[in-house]
Amino acid sequence: MGSAEAAAEAGGGARGPGGVPPPALLTDLYQFTMAYGYWRAGRAGEPAAFELFFRRCPFQGGFALCAGLGECLAFLRAFRFAPADIEYLKSILPATTEKAFFEYLRTVDASEVSVSSPPEGSVVFSRVPLLQVRGPLLVVQLLETTLLCLMNYASLVATNAARFRLAAGPHKKLIELGLRRAQGPDGGLSASKYSYLGGFDFTSNVLAGKLFGIPVRGTIAHSFVSSFNSLAEVKPRNLVPAGGQKPVDFPALAETWLSRVCQLLQVPLDGVNQGELAAFVSYAITFPQNFQGLVDTYCVMRSGVPNFCAVALALNELGYRAVGIRVDSGDLAKQSVEIRHVFRLCGKHFDVPWFETIPIAVSNDVSERSLEELAQQGNEIDMIGVGTHIVTCPLQPSLGCVYKLVEVNGAPRLKVTEDKEKTTIPGRKVVYRLWNADGFPCMDLMALEDESPPKAGQEVAFWSLGETEEAGTLVPTTVEILHRPYFKDGQVCPSLPSLEEIKGHVQASLGKLSPAHKRLRDPEAYQVAVTEKLHSLLLDLQSNSR
Amino acid sequence: MGSAEAAAEAGGGARGPGGVPPPALLTDLYQFTMAYGYWRAGRAGEPAAFELFFRRCPFQGGFALCAGLGECLAFLRAFRFAPADIEYLKSILPATTEKAFFEYLRTVDASEVSVSSPPEGSVVFSRVPLLQVRGPLLVVQLLETTLLCLMNYASLVATNAARFRLAAGPHKKLIELGLRRAQGPDGGLSASKYSYLGGFDFTSNVLAGKLFGIPVRGTIAHSFVSSFNSLAEVKPRNLVPAGGQKPVDFPALAETWLSRVCQLLQVPLDGVNQGELAAFVSYAITFPQNFQGLVDTYCVMRSGVPNFCAVALALNELGYRAVGIRVDSGDLAKQSVEIRHVFRLCGKHFDVPWFETIPIAVSNDVSERSLEELAQQGNEIDMIGVGTHIVTCPLQPSLGCVYKLVEVNGAPRLKVTEDKEKTTIPGRKVVYRLWNADGFPCMDLMALEDESPPKAGQEVAFWSLGETEEAGTLVPTTVEILHRPYFKDGQVCPSLPSLEEIKGHVQASLGKLSPAHKRLRDPEAYQVAVTEKLHSLLLDLQSNSR
Repeated sequence: MGSAEAAAEAGGGARGPGGVPPPALLTDLYQFTMAYGYWRAGRAGEPAAFELFFRRCPFQGGFALCAGLGECLAFLRAFRFAPADIEYLKSILPATTEKAFFEYLRTVDASEVSVSSPPEGSVVFSRVPLLQVRGPLLVVQLLETTLLCLMNYASLVATNAARFRLAAGPHKKLIELGLRRAQGPDGGLSASKYSYLGGFDFTSNVLAGKLFGIPVRGTIAHSFVSSFNSLAEVKPRNLVPAGGQKPVDFPALAETWLSRVCQLLQVPLDGVNQGELAAFVSYAITFPQNFQGLVDTYCVMRSGVPNFCAVALALNELGYRAVGIRVDSGDLAKQSVEIRHVFRLCGKHFDVPWFETIPIAVSNDVSERSLEELAQQGNEIDMIGVGTHIVTCPLQPSLGCVYKLVEVNGAPRLKVTEDKEKTTIPGRKVVYRLWNADGFPCMDLMALEDESPPKAGQEVAFWSLGETEEAGTLVPTTVEILHRPYFKDGQVCPSLPSLEEIKGHVQASLGKLSPAHKRLRDPEAYQVAVTEKLHSLLLDLQSNSR
Repeated sequence: MGSAEAAAEAGGGARGPGGVPPPALLTDLYQFTMAYGYWRAGRAGEPAAFELFFRRCPFQGGFALCAGLGECLAFLRAFRFAPADIEYLKSILPATTEKAFFEYLRTVDASEVSVSSPPEGSVVFSRVPLLQVRGPLLVVQLLETTLLCLMNYASLVATNAARFRLAAGPHKKLIELGLRRAQGPDGGLSASKYSYLGGFDFTSNVLAGKLFGIPVRGTIAHSFVSSFNSLAEVKPRNLVPAGGQKPVDFPALAETWLSRVCQLLQVPLDGVNQGELAAFVSYAITFPQNFQGLVDTYCVMRSGVPNFCAVALALNELGYRAVGIRVDSGDLAKQSVEIRHVFRLCGKHFDVPWFETIPIAVSNDVSERSLEELAQQGNEIDMIGVGTHIVTCPLQPSLGCVYKLVEVNGAPRLKVTEDKEKTTIPGRKVVYRLWNADGFPCMDLMALEDESPPKAGQEVAFWSLGETEEAGTLVPTTVEILHRPYFKDGQVCPSLPSLEEIKGHVQASLGKLSPAHKRLRDPEAYQVAVTEKLHSLLLDLQSNSR
């Protein structure tokens, strides 16, 4: 702990989405050995261009969302090495490293760097750059690891959240509950932020609510329920009716309702857990306008639901409405149907019409797959809590973005490994998103910067990338430039959208995409292609490299 | 970014292992609604005991490591609500929440909390508490989410690292490279810290090196190699021999060696990539005592390896020794064997004996599984870089620790859901680790605090937990108390071990464990049991709850 405290004092901690940007030292060592290599070869200032992209859409899906841009820009603005950082670097680089290099590092910042990107929250596809980063070779090399760290997880979680939203449909509420299962404090904050951005409605994470303005939700846990033994423990016992009349002994009222409910449901009264009843009663007295019950600490249908209904009906008698019920184990779809049936029964029998529509919330290891199953099975669920499966993305826990050099000193560069998928696309590019006659984007076309842009209504020749490369032509109805400038001369260029605006852009961007690419399984691959000129360049460089 | 900046100013960011402890607000909303429930029922100060444990060993393995304690203690020591936190809570809790509750929250801290735990880095098993947390009901309830967040991932990654170490064997060096694939900045720092703790040797993460003193390693990336076109770009060209003699034109020397190497290896000289040669030459001039080549930017055996050998032999002529070679794609075992063959050939032919032993490093999506395959295949690998598979733990991306109430106000509590595995073990306990005659720990026995402890050499009756519960007896040769007090009266009790000491404890703790429990696949389950008295209590409470 000593070193952590010292670090905190020195301002050296790695702070994520909630705090100040991560320090420039949060990177891989080889960035510094390479930097020294460039510097010593007099190449530090050579103009270079890198692209950050992924090779395959995550989760075997047809799309991804681009997220993390705002944090990258904050990182770039603050990018500088503190004296303590330089001292540390001196201690780990070979003793032969020249002093002048460390002097040089003191002067390094992102003031000559420029970055362009699709707007944060845009739908993106494999091999299309999420970031285009240009600037002095040494500087843009040093940025690699941190930019990857900031983009990879943000984009992955946002995409995961969008898929959960697609699986759940537009009407069910989704709440993220994953803080306890995330990669530490900032992992949890990132998860909350980017799952909201990608399509969730709420988070349970209070700090995320405070920092990002995300609506926060939460009620009680099993520990609250099991901390009560009997109604004798309930204090205070009185509840003032909503109309302000004389206070009522609420535990007694709830007990009366419990026997009526048990009779109606044909549930033995002595099988109902008294501690659970006490917990619900106590919570209802505490939050009469926000009563929600967690009904699976003991038996759901023989204790939790009767207790919930009794307390909710007692509240109703005093003019309050319960706001929801939650189940956290077992067959969620089946139980939701059974609970809705009980609500309808109670609503009719006791003449309380709103009772039928009490929102039913579920949680318990909910995954994309289980959401699909819930939908197939039929259910009466209104709100779904997701923890582990949204924050850890178990279907694919890493997006696998890479950051590759595409040009240096005016010469296009590429990496040609034996693993063909790892070959990069050389050169400084413009990416055009082409739309078809059905009104959908149908191709992202990468062109060299000096090529004349494709035009709507005119035939465009292309080489599509993918399993097999093939030539073709199409006539786009609309041509859109995908990237916009976001950073120049050390400054963030346009004013950035708010989280709410980005969240809106996500849904708009997804809304425009053809359903064929949005299918969660076996989606149709979206076409990503290069122009003939870029294709020729690629072939030339490949043959030269042999 | 506005809100993030404001938060940073207010000291409100979520800071992980590198910085100050996470703020008290990094928790789930329901902790506050429950806290208000307890407070209003006059139960805030009731003495309560919680246990933090997992239900199944991760990765279908036979053990886990307990990690994260140091961060939990730092969090507890700092646990307090800032005025801005209280204001935010006022804005999200129902308007009916009493003002006095918020006044009360201002006074809340961990000064009445006590925590015991196995020493950090100990081998632990399912259902045995990683933390025993006691204190006022309201306070220990509020701690739940953050303690889970700090323990879950730390323990998961440490366990994962221990398994990589077991799979790799004791001699190969393991380096963690996962920063770019982690859950943001602090996810990456946590991964570096706890993979080192669990058995890795190095990290590539410079900030982790600075903050935790972890040895940092790294050389060059493909971008460095592909940034060079030809030897003409190499500046400076001169290299002073190790003996301090007259500087030598190093590119020219390397070229001479390249033709000799190509002849020996029967590789066409004109197929060797000149940019790659230039990159190696430039890097060797920069770091003559630390030259390492990354040989798969172009063709490994027809370009990368000949270029590497040429530069390493040129360095040798000047009295320097190359420190390693790295391959980042393709069949790693096969290539390591081919490369070692080349090294032996060059070593013999050019009479450079040390050449045979140049360390071979590999990376490229290395997993626990691929380590097993490497071992089966036979290989000549000395160092293994692991990224995604160590930091994201794809075999099981979450440990699934829970935090359950076991006693309140002197009464043992449990949760009995329909999901039997989720039933908790009630009461304040002491956990005894019992050793058998073979000299291995063989059972963790949970007893109630007021029971007399088992004694070495005397028969102990137990009920084992697991798929089927059954009674039995055993005679332990040694009895050890698993937990130690670590936090009391708001202070950390003993002086905590350093990261190096914890790392040592991990290996010692694993070293004592029977190989049967350490098998990576189908391990023998370690026995976790309860005393007869605890078993009776469990049955009593279960039947009472119905």
